[in-house]
Amino acid sequence: MKQARLQETFLRGKQVFDGRLLQVHRDVVALSDGHEEVREIMRHPGASVIIPDLGDGRLVLVRQFRYALDRETLEFPAGRLDPGEDPETCAKRELAEETGYQAGKLDFLLKIHPAPGYTDELIYIYRASEMTAGKAHPDSDEELFTVEITVDELVEKLQQGILTDSKTINALLYYRCFIG
Amino acid sequence: MKQARLQETFLRGKQVFDGRLLQVHRDVVALSDGHEEVREIMRHPGASVIIPDLGDGRLVLVRQFRYALDRETLEFPAGRLDPGEDPETCAKRELAEETGYQAGKLDFLLKIHPAPGYTDELIYIYRASEMTAGKAHPDSDEELFTVEITVDELVEKLQQGILTDSKTINALLYYRCFIG
Repeated sequence: MKQARLQETFLRGKQVFDGRLLQVHRDVVALSDGHEEVREIMRHPGASVIIPDLGDGRLVLVRQFRYALDRETLEFPAGRLDPGEDPETCAKRELAEETGYQAGKLDFLLKIHPAPGYTDELIYIYRASEMTAGKAHPDSDEELFTVEITVDELVEKLQQGILTDSKTINALLYYRCFIG
Repeated sequence: MKQARLQETFLRGKQVFDGRLLQVHRDVVALSDGHEEVREIMRHPGASVIIPDLGDGRLVLVRQFRYALDRETLEFPAGRLDPGEDPETCAKRELAEETGYQAGKLDFLLKIHPAPGYTDELIYIYRASEMTAGKAHPDSDEELFTVEITVDELVEKLQQGILTDSKTINALLYYRCFIG
């Protein structure tokens, strides 16, 4: 990462969409060589993902309908940071809301940018262990079911092309390579 | 993935932003239990990512400035599908444009949805091998430099929190777990 430094400098811009979830900006920037380009980006508050580890080889995932894909997906529990919320608090809250489990222990594993070409979203990935079961209470705008499944079964679903959620694959392969 | 079927059905909606890169839609949907929710989503043509494998333990990545993150990143070569383009053709084209390498052999590895909560983007990940070096010719709107680096060095950068691009981490860990 040495050599010439690359830079894109903000010249002018405006918010072009202010949605409930998405805030889209259209900016004009100067590249390192001085010429101008348009950048369309989406501002995002960040999110946390949790690998809920039952300690017996099984992990807890949620299946839910993803409107953008028009189909169900299998994903680790996850959710956006509330205003002012730190990623660890968010991880514990989302785990409890989506699966009912309380995390006795939470370990930070890695952070990822899901789509650096058009959003500043940053996702923090944690492993939850020493969990206590409880009752799930998802947001009113989401319907989901929990699924308890082994790492090997998940790897199989990945290789079959069934598991396609990027944050879930990142978390699963990191767990497989470095933890379980 | 059995149990009750989840569904979100389109009721009404409109395109709220038509950008050069981003097309944003705001739809009202009916959930499985009948109540209505708003879904804001971004339509995307899809993309291809390439792991350029030099065959001597080193892979080729590109460092580039990401305006959304206001910093440089280290990523595998990648790019959007042109209209009507198939993912394999896109992979070869982007590899040649961004690094100059021509792929003698291209193997499909996996596909990922980077952000199923708000976009239908689907990324196809390939491994390129038996490569022939040539001259890079990136798009006029992007500045980048190639970096040749070992898998071990990349894993170290991942664990240091330097490597954060989700598609790159997916590709790297898949390669590490199942190939190299």
